[in-house]
Amino acid sequence: MKNYQTYFLMKAPDVPDYVRSKLKEFFPTGAMLESSEIGDGNLNYVFRVKDAVTGKTIIVKQAGAATRISADMILSTDRGRIEAKILQIQAKLAPGLVPEVYLYDEVMCAILMEDMIGHTMMRTGLLQHEIYPGFSEDISTFMARTLLLTTDVAMNHKEKKELVKSFVNPDLCEITEDLVYSEPYNDCHQRNNVFPPNAAFIRQELYEDKVLHLEVAKLKFEFMNHAQSLIHGDLHSGSIFINKKHTFIFDPEFAFYGPMGYDTGNILANMFFAWCNGDAMIKDLVQREKFCSWVLQTIQEIVDKFIEKFKALYEERVTDIMAKTEGFSAYYLAAVLADTAGVMGLELIRRTDGMANVKDITTIEDEEKRVRAERIVVTLAKECILQRNDFKCGQDYLAAIQRAVEKF
Amino acid sequence: MKNYQTYFLMKAPDVPDYVRSKLKEFFPTGAMLESSEIGDGNLNYVFRVKDAVTGKTIIVKQAGAATRISADMILSTDRGRIEAKILQIQAKLAPGLVPEVYLYDEVMCAILMEDMIGHTMMRTGLLQHEIYPGFSEDISTFMARTLLLTTDVAMNHKEKKELVKSFVNPDLCEITEDLVYSEPYNDCHQRNNVFPPNAAFIRQELYEDKVLHLEVAKLKFEFMNHAQSLIHGDLHSGSIFINKKHTFIFDPEFAFYGPMGYDTGNILANMFFAWCNGDAMIKDLVQREKFCSWVLQTIQEIVDKFIEKFKALYEERVTDIMAKTEGFSAYYLAAVLADTAGVMGLELIRRTDGMANVKDITTIEDEEKRVRAERIVVTLAKECILQRNDFKCGQDYLAAIQRAVEKF
Repeated sequence: MKNYQTYFLMKAPDVPDYVRSKLKEFFPTGAMLESSEIGDGNLNYVFRVKDAVTGKTIIVKQAGAATRISADMILSTDRGRIEAKILQIQAKLAPGLVPEVYLYDEVMCAILMEDMIGHTMMRTGLLQHEIYPGFSEDISTFMARTLLLTTDVAMNHKEKKELVKSFVNPDLCEITEDLVYSEPYNDCHQRNNVFPPNAAFIRQELYEDKVLHLEVAKLKFEFMNHAQSLIHGDLHSGSIFINKKHTFIFDPEFAFYGPMGYDTGNILANMFFAWCNGDAMIKDLVQREKFCSWVLQTIQEIVDKFIEKFKALYEERVTDIMAKTEGFSAYYLAAVLADTAGVMGLELIRRTDGMANVKDITTIEDEEKRVRAERIVVTLAKECILQRNDFKCGQDYLAAIQRAVEKF
Repeated sequence: MKNYQTYFLMKAPDVPDYVRSKLKEFFPTGAMLESSEIGDGNLNYVFRVKDAVTGKTIIVKQAGAATRISADMILSTDRGRIEAKILQIQAKLAPGLVPEVYLYDEVMCAILMEDMIGHTMMRTGLLQHEIYPGFSEDISTFMARTLLLTTDVAMNHKEKKELVKSFVNPDLCEITEDLVYSEPYNDCHQRNNVFPPNAAFIRQELYEDKVLHLEVAKLKFEFMNHAQSLIHGDLHSGSIFINKKHTFIFDPEFAFYGPMGYDTGNILANMFFAWCNGDAMIKDLVQREKFCSWVLQTIQEIVDKFIEKFKALYEERVTDIMAKTEGFSAYYLAAVLADTAGVMGLELIRRTDGMANVKDITTIEDEEKRVRAERIVVTLAKECILQRNDFKCGQDYLAAIQRAVEKF
């Protein structure tokens, strides 16, 4: 039996022995283990090991030494440690909403964890126009709890600083700084993927709008300097595994101390992409309206439930004497909500003209419909960024969406 | 000869052997070494070793395991490492304005460094009403360079994050969070030192003003969460050694990544304390006006020269593509200037009613004059905090000072 004292990149057949070596009692003696690679991410290799006798499964996620995105973006394998640690923290703060970590192996940079079997990647489900009635409830709980309870309005200040230190995440933050906060506004970056029929529109609306650039620059340094909460850092529908009854939030390898609006805004943007896809792709009118109205309702509910849970938790859990000053919680929440709208706009834009497009848009086959969807997205996004202080409740998002849709 | 493999707290007679052991060639073989303890700080033990033959000197600063402030405030000796490291960084950014570090000894938690001989602690000099014509030039250079050049508008983003991590400073930040941002506004803290004839005034103006508390709370979380620059963190006139021709900035053990306005505001507040002392204590009218007008001129020059140098450096050194957006530097500087005014107000207040008063005020013997000085200070401070967005140049500070002085 190997001793796994030196890192090597595993293939599927390596993984059963590895699991037996690390978690001796997980599978019973007579288990017949099958192994397969199931990941489609860019940064990691994900394997499932299954006991054909009992059906019991486990997931092994190993960080590759170099990312698959492109040859010039080399990432530290330290992100595995960060991911395992944050999953354990989030499990305490939002029990049941993240998969359980059984073990993190520093040598092999691998996490051995609960299989989210019976759940679908949410983006895949949304592309099939599935409805998830419990999602707004689960995601608002997850965000309010993991975000507010890791701030220093609620935490011991010294413990919070140790977390800040332990989650400094230069490699992954650099990806976000480039792909979200810089390249989508600068034609000089050859990595942007622009849909050709919208090239002139993107140039005018995104590359040449200096007023927009100034607001993006403000948000960029807010992202880099505001060590507010232990954020997930990549909270889109590809980081969520879901079914009709339950939600798992996953893939927190971008986690670091940043502005909580980065998570809340990301979710809202990716919900809106689902709306765009449903609006363009569902042929049956009844089905289309059912799916699209559920998406809009969910956007509204995410915002309003987050606000409600944030306020209740603030009352219950905030400890800092100055943070209890009358008016401070409202000031604090208002800043989070402005960040939320700003980041929603940034995510909408970068997924449209940046390097990493979303399938919700790219699978719209009809050219005219895709052109229209992207223009709605960019128009909404710019309002979210430029008028971000005006987005104070769920209804404000619905009204902005309506304005953008009516323009095209 | 001892090998210094285990930490112990040195007394003056221990230090010459220690220096010979660590820096073999610093003193020549025939040197006759004399040693004395010269520190008056609360956190460290400072020794000077002098060769009676050549006059050559060295300073050894050792971190005590526990602070001298009070028995319940125990500090990590890690602050010595932070101090040595930041002095080396500052020496590169602002050459000649910090003492040279020869060696940092992790075991003994001791820094062996350049003696700032021929320089006086600036607070001591100011209490003797000395004038330092070069101070505004030196301190504005120091602040513009050490602050702007450690931000991620100017630095490589990844290197900046490594610095953030390396300078997380929970113990010393906690002192500031308590003594500057909480206790001066809350009577419940028995550690406040309030001048009895001003007790009712302090209660009304500081403990009971809820509008003030809200603005202080905003500034508190700005201090804790805004990882903007590698700040000195304790930049008052007791951290500066000076003569008519030269300035040394010292004692950066509170350093961490925080808002740059924390340094700029601190300096301005402590200059104003010098004005208060001169105004109350100098009997000769000509002398008084000479000293006080130099102080006011220096306050104005510090602000205006800082702005000028900041702008020039921004043009020259900023690398981030979004930070170069038109209008961003003005937005960025405006936020720094608002923080500056806010922190000036906080420092003025905490040195008046908080635990650590300043000699500039406490040595005013005449009760009526001290009462007046403190009321001017608190009045000015509140304008600085509440109207901090209106302080945009040196003249704005002089005008606010005049308004406060005219009230009493």
